[in-house]
Amino acid sequence: MADKKLVEAITSMEEDFAQWYTDVVKKAELIEYSTVKGCIILKPAGYALWENIQRELDRRFKETGVENVYMPMVIPEGLLQKEKDHVEGFAPEVAWVTYGGGEQLEERLCIRPTSETLFCDFYKNEIHSYRDLPKVYNQWCSVFRWEKTTRPFLRSREFLWQEGHTMHETAEDAENRTVQMLNVYADFCKEYLAIPTIRGKKTDKEKFAGAVATYTIEAMMHDGKALQSGTSHNFGDGFAKAFGIQFTGRDNKLHTPHQTSWGLSTRIIGAMIMVHGDNSGLVLPPRIAPTQVVIIPIQQKKDGVLDAARALQEKLSDFRVKLDDSDRSPGFKFAEQEMRGFPLRVEIGPKDMEAGNCVVVRRDTREKFTVAQAELHDFVEKMLDTIHNDMYERAKKHLEENIFPAVTYDEFCDAINNKPGFVKAMWCGDVECENKIKEDTTATSRCMPFNDQEPISDRCVCCGKPAKHLVYWGKAY
Amino acid sequence: MADKKLVEAITSMEEDFAQWYTDVVKKAELIEYSTVKGCIILKPAGYALWENIQRELDRRFKETGVENVYMPMVIPEGLLQKEKDHVEGFAPEVAWVTYGGGEQLEERLCIRPTSETLFCDFYKNEIHSYRDLPKVYNQWCSVFRWEKTTRPFLRSREFLWQEGHTMHETAEDAENRTVQMLNVYADFCKEYLAIPTIRGKKTDKEKFAGAVATYTIEAMMHDGKALQSGTSHNFGDGFAKAFGIQFTGRDNKLHTPHQTSWGLSTRIIGAMIMVHGDNSGLVLPPRIAPTQVVIIPIQQKKDGVLDAARALQEKLSDFRVKLDDSDRSPGFKFAEQEMRGFPLRVEIGPKDMEAGNCVVVRRDTREKFTVAQAELHDFVEKMLDTIHNDMYERAKKHLEENIFPAVTYDEFCDAINNKPGFVKAMWCGDVECENKIKEDTTATSRCMPFNDQEPISDRCVCCGKPAKHLVYWGKAY
Repeated sequence: MADKKLVEAITSMEEDFAQWYTDVVKKAELIEYSTVKGCIILKPAGYALWENIQRELDRRFKETGVENVYMPMVIPEGLLQKEKDHVEGFAPEVAWVTYGGGEQLEERLCIRPTSETLFCDFYKNEIHSYRDLPKVYNQWCSVFRWEKTTRPFLRSREFLWQEGHTMHETAEDAENRTVQMLNVYADFCKEYLAIPTIRGKKTDKEKFAGAVATYTIEAMMHDGKALQSGTSHNFGDGFAKAFGIQFTGRDNKLHTPHQTSWGLSTRIIGAMIMVHGDNSGLVLPPRIAPTQVVIIPIQQKKDGVLDAARALQEKLSDFRVKLDDSDRSPGFKFAEQEMRGFPLRVEIGPKDMEAGNCVVVRRDTREKFTVAQAELHDFVEKMLDTIHNDMYERAKKHLEENIFPAVTYDEFCDAINNKPGFVKAMWCGDVECENKIKEDTTATSRCMPFNDQEPISDRCVCCGKPAKHLVYWGKAY
Repeated sequence: MADKKLVEAITSMEEDFAQWYTDVVKKAELIEYSTVKGCIILKPAGYALWENIQRELDRRFKETGVENVYMPMVIPEGLLQKEKDHVEGFAPEVAWVTYGGGEQLEERLCIRPTSETLFCDFYKNEIHSYRDLPKVYNQWCSVFRWEKTTRPFLRSREFLWQEGHTMHETAEDAENRTVQMLNVYADFCKEYLAIPTIRGKKTDKEKFAGAVATYTIEAMMHDGKALQSGTSHNFGDGFAKAFGIQFTGRDNKLHTPHQTSWGLSTRIIGAMIMVHGDNSGLVLPPRIAPTQVVIIPIQQKKDGVLDAARALQEKLSDFRVKLDDSDRSPGFKFAEQEMRGFPLRVEIGPKDMEAGNCVVVRRDTREKFTVAQAELHDFVEKMLDTIHNDMYERAKKHLEENIFPAVTYDEFCDAINNKPGFVKAMWCGDVECENKIKEDTTATSRCMPFNDQEPISDRCVCCGKPAKHLVYWGKAY
């Protein structure tokens, strides 16, 4: 009965995708809602995902010369206001500290919504000569934005992220770093989370408050909606000028440095769930999975079964392996493995023992394999890679099959309203067309993709004026 | 000239220990002051220490069954007020958020000064049966306390730490976990930071707001002052009762669980600096040192020198090794290695190359060794352990030699005022004696040590009434 309850409790994704998502994050015990409005609690199974993301991404950052630092969590109002576009973008959604130590503050402090201003204030005293450049710093922290509607991982008032903030001698160096970090994100999504993404540039309307250019990786969820999964911004010298940061160049003259920032947050966990999950729950890509293999003994009270299970656990100690020897039924344990998304389960009972075998079941396809115990280690090693690759290929196929070209506005509206996925269409570059499209369809421009593609028309899909850019459009989380 | 400047810039610790400390944290580039009052910026060299502490301590936690979670960074006022002693302890020093999203809040939120209340609020919905116990959760985060006077690492408004919060079926389980985690801290200090500590129990006056018992590890700085380096609290069932947390026990009746919390913060970096540092700067214990070995080429423009240095770097790739091939002078590089506290430097120049040797210099003792290149790897491996052990033994000797017994109040005042270190004296258990001692001498009771020791008198050192406890007293950071 407990088995049934566990399975029945999930809404199917075809019936109600949003409810399916909410069910999965709760039933897989990733999060709990907090009584602190708009904030979530990351439970062990959810936080372990972030720990693994952090470890792997941090390693990749450091390979490119990134160093970690830590800045204060609050920003004095005067500092936030130094860059005009930035304060306009963020002031409406910050939380203000007005009392401290029992007294009203002379100057309000906001909880950081992002830390460009703090980094600039710091760099002002650190950068004097071209010898001090580049500065390639990052911090892992939480930020706070006063969101009105929130959803676990996708949008919450507080969220965990990393924010890189760099300063460079030349505009070219800054542009290169901006693109380099976007590529780090895209590779990380592909190689660690099995998520294919589209790399591209945001339109001016969609770019970050204060940036010259924003680059993005966009992923497609199972329901065809877009999720912006990581962004990298080139600030040019705007912030640096606003903060008066200057350095003596190789020519012995004063110059203003060029700046970037880039961030990836716990949102990516939401992406992973919505790209890979199914109607039995979470499906974790093997490289991030906190438990890669769960061993489930069958008839575990019979002589020798638990010992045999422990021997398999020992054999698999290279992997993140767990033995479930609790007194719950095998059926319950199977359902739990599926709900929690562990990539492989290994079953072993008296019959398998007699034959020197065990049974291995893939979470993603549910395929069953009878494997000789002596070959289990190598089988698991190869199978984890196979699962990763298969998950990536399935997600890639889904992405590619759900990008629909549109030349006329009727085609555009039809596709965006009736087909789950992105629409690929030409655009004149005018924000008014973006606004009209958003009003008519709720879709937004996701990005102008990097990989130069043939224009599919010479006219803007919306106004019919000459087209400047090919754009992917979609409804987004 | 640059070499001289680097060295001259430190105040000697005998002249002014406080200024020496400030000089070291700045010159070793661990921190920068922030324009956000009372907060510091952890620069790469400082944050790398915290990263290493986090990695090692987290590993030790997980070995004892700890799981990591993440709670919101703000606490609604009503939640903070649920436990009477706790709110009295913390309310005066919190920062209050009163506006969010452009509107005044109906209920103020404080930035967490610690998270007992959030964990209790969470556990209330998680714990129903004895099967749900124990819960052994921890989080790595930053907290905020409105301190009036601040010093880098030792006391700042925001600081990084970990806070463990556990719930147990019985009082005994909670007490065992409280002591277990104190021992994890003490072992970590000894084995990773080469810091000897005294383990003991705080007096009621000095215990945590809301705790039944607080245990502490106390370290002695080079100037003889105490630094509380980690604490572990047994809360009994006080918070759980205030929050209405109950579970069905094995007897099928309702019970209240027993709770602990324990924390260690970036303060420990301050301890490490003040236990091991010297007049040339930082001295890093080898296991935490982000750079364990720096290779400095001599006459590096001469043929083959840089290649030889790179070959040594390759040989030492098991360790955290850095090659300094910048165009600064060797003398500058030596001074920098000393200031930054890298445990070993390896010098290699044309003469050494001819002989197949290199020169290895210990940071802690400045001893020089001529080592055959073929033996360098093994030499470094052993030497890093030797340095760790020697640093620990020196610090232990310093601690033991600077604990002074006092039987009369005159002896007590004389020792506490004139000898740098702790005073060991008997106490009646009355808070008024603690208050008088603090008023007269500024010293506080550090702890009642764990290792049962012979009473040194049967009378309280302050009031002369019958003594109940042996106490270590000291002036503290």
